Amino acid sequence: MTLNHARLAEFGGTAALLAVVVGSGIMGERLAQGNVAIALLANSLATGAGLYVLITLLGPVSGAHFNPVVTGVMWWRGEQSGREFLAYVIAQIAGAVLGVWLTHVMFDMSVFQVGIKERTGLGQWVSEGVATAGLLATILLGLRANARAIPALVGCYITAAYWFTASTSFANPAVTIARSLTATFAGIRPTDAPGFVVAQFAAALLVIGVLRGETRPARIP
Amino acid sequence: MTLNHARLAEFGGTAALLAVVVGSGIMGERLAQGNVAIALLANSLATGAGLYVLITLLGPVSGAHFNPVVTGVMWWRGEQSGREFLAYVIAQIAGAVLGVWLTHVMFDMSVFQVGIKERTGLGQWVSEGVATAGLLATILLGLRANARAIPALVGCYITAAYWFTASTSFANPAVTIARSLTATFAGIRPTDAPGFVVAQFAAALLVIGVLRGETRPARIP
Amino acid sequence: MTLNHARLAEFGGTAALLAVVVGSGIMGERLAQGNVAIALLANSLATGAGLYVLITLLGPVSGAHFNPVVTGVMWWRGEQSGREFLAYVIAQIAGAVLGVWLTHVMFDMSVFQVGIKERTGLGQWVSEGVATAGLLATILLGLRANARAIPALVGCYITAAYWFTASTSFANPAVTIARSLTATFAGIRPTDAPGFVVAQFAAALLVIGVLRGETRPARIP
Amino acid sequence: MTLNHARLAEFGGTAALLAVVVGSGIMGERLAQGNVAIALLANSLATGAGLYVLITLLGPVSGAHFNPVVTGVMWWRGEQSGREFLAYVIAQIAGAVLGVWLTHVMFDMSVFQVGIKERTGLGQWVSEGVATAGLLATILLGLRANARAIPALVGCYITAAYWFTASTSFANPAVTIARSLTATFAGIRPTDAPGFVVAQFAAALLVIGVLRGETRPARIP
Repeated sequence: MTLNHARLAEFGGTAALLAVVVGSGIMGERLAQGNVAIALLANSLATGAGLYVLITLLGPVSGAHFNPVVTGVMWWRGEQSGREFLAYVIAQIAGAVLGVWLTHVMFDMSVFQVGIKERTGLGQWVSEGVATAGLLATILLGLRANARAIPALVGCYITAAYWFTASTSFANPAVTIARSLTATFAGIRPTDAPGFVVAQFAAALLVIGVLRGETRPARIP
Repeated sequence: MTLNHARLAEFGGTAALLAVVVGSGIMGERLAQGNVAIALLANSLATGAGLYVLITLLGPVSGAHFNPVVTGVMWWRGEQSGREFLAYVIAQIAGAVLGVWLTHVMFDMSVFQVGIKERTGLGQWVSEGVATAGLLATILLGLRANARAIPALVGCYITAAYWFTASTSFANPAVTIARSLTATFAGIRPTDAPGFVVAQFAAALLVIGVLRGETRPARIP
Repeated sequence: MTLNHARLAEFGGTAALLAVVVGSGIMGERLAQGNVAIALLANSLATGAGLYVLITLLGPVSGAHFNPVVTGVMWWRGEQSGREFLAYVIAQIAGAVLGVWLTHVMFDMSVFQVGIKERTGLGQWVSEGVATAGLLATILLGLRANARAIPALVGCYITAAYWFTASTSFANPAVTIARSLTATFAGIRPTDAPGFVVAQFAAALLVIGVLRGETRPARIP
Repeated sequence: MTLNHARLAEFGGTAALLAVVVGSGIMGERLAQGNVAIALLANSLATGAGLYVLITLLGPVSGAHFNPVVTGVMWWRGEQSGREFLAYVIAQIAGAVLGVWLTHVMFDMSVFQVGIKERTGLGQWVSEGVATAGLLATILLGLRANARAIPALVGCYITAAYWFTASTSFANPAVTIARSLTATFAGIRPTDAPGFVVAQFAAALLVIGVLRGETRPARIP
């Protein structure tokens, strides 16, 4: 697998995304004196703002997916070869893991950790399904309605989705895997990660089915 | 009543709106340790961000009303037939109720609930009148001043209105009905719902009267 | 004095601005359990969002000043007659007072109140001078740099200024007078109001002097 | 060194930036009853909003650097002479210090203070490196991707970076020096400042090396 700008952008962008998600979670938890709502408020606002920046910067380079489910849908739309799909997913997962480790270094914690937060059960899985379906609908309908607003749309969507789903909206298999490698605020038990990933891909299939005719391929301008 | 894209958009969009409103309320209440201001802050920011996304995505499909009062004004402006008005309202109410139930599933709660929060009295009714009049003024003046900014305008308006009205600004009969079906943070006693709906329609009549000449029909571009 | 659309817009817009400022203050104070930082966070975000909406909607109608100091600077720039300046100021003050009274009705409080919060001393006056100078610089430089962004610029400026000045940035004589008529979170003792107003006008004179050549008249497009 | 509009803009803009950073920190700390997360939330939102305003207003005048590291990169790109680089840096540091002192006056504190907050160690230095590299990447990639969005991009980036780095993201030598002159929330011990500045310049060199080919000179339009 050779490196190119797009793959590097997916690697670096996903690493940065995880630094924002995990880092703001650690900071929030440390400062909030146990009031988790304040930690989640900081976490959700930082993630939304970070996504707006990352998608604006790297959209023109790689499409700014940072998410295997999104890359999968783009592959299904015929915008990406199977080979490029695979390269993107590898770059996303590697970047996500590196982002978590870098964040642990910034906060003077052990680099290698394992998630301990229990996130399982029907409500969590339905939440991940809803969160992922909403993210894909935001991207696919957003490309048609106002493609230039995609960075703001995704940022606002995720800020809201942290709050309206019971799972705080991972909505991303690479993020889920990487968050199983931190014992901090944003973590998830490795044993709970597969349930999340299955729900995420199931939602993607559902969206592809429902929006089939609605989502003729279109590139971000 | 046949289904078309616009009606489906009103159904799905109102369902998503209620998921945001009720879901972020539940999450906020659960995490805020009794500090209701933090819960309302999360609730208002999530709702504003969600409205920005939903109106951007579905505006081109259905106008993104999600609100019988808004649809009623559009009918009065001659932009919609009486038949379409009715279909929209049915879709909005059905979507709103479904959104609440789906949210209960995400949070592992009983699907069918009844609102218990008391919201009645002169201050509440005046608040709903002010909230609804403000929402309609935002839409009608916004269509003339800067129609492309409508999603941001409505999102910002509602975020502010959660705070400056004593009722936290329902401003929407479909939302009011659906919120009478949840015993959580965003709920309302069913017996208090009619007072809200009357205040909302009264405000709509007032706005139509005052802004009569000011609001020549214009479509969202 | 005859009514015209511009004067009505200044009246209604300033009333709405005060409803946002005072109403969100009351709601924040009631819910925040004594943690004033949370109340001010809600207050500042609601005010910023509200200003974005009001200036977008009413900018094309009246310029959306809502502020005698702003109207005064526009008169100095030759964009307004002395007669219109006076009419605007009367409309702004009347609207501001009405907005406070309406808010008291929404929150089931006595309509007529007197401010009790002490806001005096050198730090407060310097704060009002800095806040007003910053607001005017935002408007005058903003008109040249990016006139279409004025609503967002003023909204963001005020959200920040609530926090970086010790006075929470009234920056507006009509607002100051009206806030002396509420005993709630956003109030000010009537005896402290003149000091604020003097500081506000002094800052306006300073800005006019410094930015003289920089601020050739230009209308919001 | 003669004064010109660009240098004045760097002086005034950096002063205003420090007033926002330090002032909102003081206000947050005073009101938050020890819940530092709420203080940092206010601090980060006020700073982001303030940066959006300042960069929009002064970008056309001076480029709105407010930061010796940014000016250094622009000099490396050949957009600025060595002489102008020096003048900018002097203006930035002088403005930053004046901004801190003015803020102390607004809050009725002693004007001359010395920082007392310990900020040292590997995690802090890595954080400053990451924060600065991210800021420069935001500017350099942002100029290519969407130059008109630079004010919003930098504002959102810094709001997020306050949370995802352990150092709360100074990312600016002039800011670091000035913040060593306040004993309040945003302060830093003077003995810890050099470590921050070294990390910031090291990150700048790294970004210049990595993005070399990617960042052909381009002016903010």
